[in-house]
Amino acid sequence: MKNFEFHNPTKIVFGKDALNKIAIELKEYGTSCLLVIGQKSAKASGTYDRVVKILKDGRINFWTLEGVQSNPLLSKVHEGIEIVKKNEIEMLLAFGGGSCMDTAKAISAGVKLHGEIWDVFEGKKEIKEALPVFCIPTLAASGSEMNGFMVITNKEKGLKLAAGSPHLFPKVSFLNPEFTFTVPKNYTAFGGVDAICHLLEPYFNGPYPNTPVQDELAEGLIRVIMKTTESSMKNPEDYDSRASMMWAATLALNGLTRAGVGDHPFPVHLIEHSLSVLYNIPHGQGLAALLPGWMKWKAEEKKEPAKVAQLGKRCFGVEKGLDDIKASTETIKAFGHWLNKIDCPKCLSEIPVPSADHEKIAENALFQAGVWGIEDTYNKETILKILSFCQ
Amino acid sequence: MKNFEFHNPTKIVFGKDALNKIAIELKEYGTSCLLVIGQKSAKASGTYDRVVKILKDGRINFWTLEGVQSNPLLSKVHEGIEIVKKNEIEMLLAFGGGSCMDTAKAISAGVKLHGEIWDVFEGKKEIKEALPVFCIPTLAASGSEMNGFMVITNKEKGLKLAAGSPHLFPKVSFLNPEFTFTVPKNYTAFGGVDAICHLLEPYFNGPYPNTPVQDELAEGLIRVIMKTTESSMKNPEDYDSRASMMWAATLALNGLTRAGVGDHPFPVHLIEHSLSVLYNIPHGQGLAALLPGWMKWKAEEKKEPAKVAQLGKRCFGVEKGLDDIKASTETIKAFGHWLNKIDCPKCLSEIPVPSADHEKIAENALFQAGVWGIEDTYNKETILKILSFCQ
Repeated sequence: MKNFEFHNPTKIVFGKDALNKIAIELKEYGTSCLLVIGQKSAKASGTYDRVVKILKDGRINFWTLEGVQSNPLLSKVHEGIEIVKKNEIEMLLAFGGGSCMDTAKAISAGVKLHGEIWDVFEGKKEIKEALPVFCIPTLAASGSEMNGFMVITNKEKGLKLAAGSPHLFPKVSFLNPEFTFTVPKNYTAFGGVDAICHLLEPYFNGPYPNTPVQDELAEGLIRVIMKTTESSMKNPEDYDSRASMMWAATLALNGLTRAGVGDHPFPVHLIEHSLSVLYNIPHGQGLAALLPGWMKWKAEEKKEPAKVAQLGKRCFGVEKGLDDIKASTETIKAFGHWLNKIDCPKCLSEIPVPSADHEKIAENALFQAGVWGIEDTYNKETILKILSFCQ
Repeated sequence: MKNFEFHNPTKIVFGKDALNKIAIELKEYGTSCLLVIGQKSAKASGTYDRVVKILKDGRINFWTLEGVQSNPLLSKVHEGIEIVKKNEIEMLLAFGGGSCMDTAKAISAGVKLHGEIWDVFEGKKEIKEALPVFCIPTLAASGSEMNGFMVITNKEKGLKLAAGSPHLFPKVSFLNPEFTFTVPKNYTAFGGVDAICHLLEPYFNGPYPNTPVQDELAEGLIRVIMKTTESSMKNPEDYDSRASMMWAATLALNGLTRAGVGDHPFPVHLIEHSLSVLYNIPHGQGLAALLPGWMKWKAEEKKEPAKVAQLGKRCFGVEKGLDDIKASTETIKAFGHWLNKIDCPKCLSEIPVPSADHEKIAENALFQAGVWGIEDTYNKETILKILSFCQ
C-alpha cells in the first residue's frame, strides 16, 4: 500500500426523510442561500416546490439560479457568482445531478476568488476558500455530493476541465433515493457507468501496489452498481435498488477506494471530457465507449493483463482457472456485453465517433493533461493509441 | 436500506512517514498536549523517544500519562483529567492500542464535563464538548482511531462500559503500520477477531433490510482481515500485510458498514465486556469465544440461517449449492476452525470459563444492556441462552 491522506468531512443524511434536516443543517452556516437547479425536471416534478417550502418554513432566504445544463457551462457559473455577490448570499444549495452540484461548487469558490474562476481549471490559480455548499443529488453518478471535485465546460474555449480542492467538499448532502425514481433509463445507465469508471480508474493504477482492501471495496461496489443499474432500469421506483445504487455511486468517488493506490490520473475521464465537449454527448455514454478499449490497451499494449483478469474473475463471472491473458480477453468481452445490455456503447464507433476524429479528440485532451501535469505519460501518441483500441 | 446519517470527520495520515505530519496537524489546535501511553512497549521500542523528539522539534509542550493497561481503568482517566486541568493542556495525543486511545478520549471529555465522567458511561450525563484528540495507534483492532467510541473499566464497580459521542472523533490519526511489527502473535490474532466482530455485529442485524452495499463492504473487509491476520502472524514485519490489516481494521468500525442497516446493538461486545471485567482476559480473546456460539444462536434459536449461510459462502469457502441450514452449520464450523488456527478459543470452555459462571456473566452484562436501553431484547434469559450456545 502507498502512503496516503484521507479526509472526507461531508455529512450524509440519507433516506426518505433526508430533506427534513435541510433547515437545521443549513442554519449552522447562515440564513441565505442560492438554490442551483437544472433545466426542467426539478420544477416539473414538484420537488422544487418541496425544497422551496422547506427553506421558507426554515426562514432561510433564497434566490434561484435555474437552467444548469448537463456538461455545465462557465457562463452559468458567472451568472451565479454575480447573484451571490450582489445579494451577499452566504451558502449554495445544489439540487440536481452532477452538473448542478459542480456549478454550485464553482460559484462557491468563484465568489471568494480574486480573479477569474476559470483560471482554477487551467491550473493558474488555487482555491483558498469557498462558501459552504450543500447538495441534494437527483442522480446516482458523479459522487460530487461527497467529494471536492467539479467539472465545468468553457464553450468559448471548447474545453471541459476538472478541478478540485478540500474547500469544495459539501458540508452536508441530503440523499433521498426517491428523487432518482424519475431518472430515465438511459441516464440511469450512464450514471452507473460513470460510477463504475470512478472505481476502475484507481483500480487500474499500474504498477499496482499491494492493495487488497481497496480492491475488495472497489469490486464490491462494482458488483452492486452493476446489479442495481439493471434493476433500477427495470423497476425505476424500486426504492431499495435506487438506494443501493445511490449510496454505492457516492462511495465510488469519496476517496475511499483511491486512498493507498498511489498517485493516479484519470485518463478515461481525461479523454471523455473531450468527447463531451466536442460532440455534446452525456458523460456516461462517452465513458462506456472508452472503458473496454482502455482495458484492452492496459492488457495488450501495457502488458498488464493480471488486474483485468482479476476484475473479470471477481465481477464478471470469468472462469477462475483461465490464465491472465485469456481471462483479460474474456473480461473485456463480458464488460462490453454488459454495456450493450444496458443500452450503452462499448466502443467509439457505436456512438458513432469516426476514427478520422481521433486527432482532434487527442489535441483537445492534451490541454487537460497539461493542466494535470501528466502530459509526459499521456502524450498525444499515447492518447491516439488508446483511442485506436477504443474505436 | 434504512435511513441513516453518516459523518466521519477524522483525518487519516497513513504510511511510513505519517509521524512527520504530527506537529503541523496538532498546531492547528494548540501548542500543548498530554501524551497518553501504555505500560512498557512504547518506551522499550524507542518509538516513544521518536514521538517526543517530534513534539520537541515542533515546539509543542507535552506531559506524559503512562501506564495505561489493556481494559483501561477509570482511575487512570481521573489521573489524566487532573494533569490536564492543572496544566491547562489543550490537546490529547494517544500513542498505543485501543486502551490508550479510549483513555485519551475519556480524559478529553472528562475535562470539559461538569461532574464525573463515569456518569457518561452509565448514561446519566451527555458529552457536550471535548478537547481535541489525536491518535497514533500501535495495534490493528479497535478502530478507535476513526470513531467516536470509548470503553472504560470501573474496577471498583466491576463494570466495563462503552460510551460514544460525535465530539470524540479524533481530529487526526497517524497510522504507521510499522508500529504494529512488534505486536505479538496472540494480540495480532485478538486484534483481527475484534475487527471482524465489529463487522459481524451490524452484518447480523436482523430482521435484515436489503443492504447489498454494506454486505459487500463488510464481507470484503472480513476476507482481507482474515488473510492479513494470518500473514501478519507468520511474517510480523511484512509491511503490506500489516498495512492492509491496519487500514481494514480502521474501516471496520468507522461507521461505513453500519450506516443503513438500521439500529443495532452490539450484543457480542455487550457480553464480552463482562468476560473482560470478570476474568481480565483480552477483549479479542473473549469475542472469539462468543462469536461462533452467537452465530449458532442466530441460525438455530432465532431461525435466521440465511445471512450466516451468505457469510460462509462469500468468506469461508462454504459450498454455494448448500441450503441455508446446512450452509450455516458449515459456516460456524469453518469460522471455529479458523479461530483455532490463529490460536484463539472458539467457545467459552476453551478459555476456560465454566458454564457455572453464566449466571454471573449475564448479571454483569445486564447493566450495560440497561444503559443502552436494550434490556428488553437482551434480557437475562436471552443472554443466558446465547451463553449456552457459546459454551
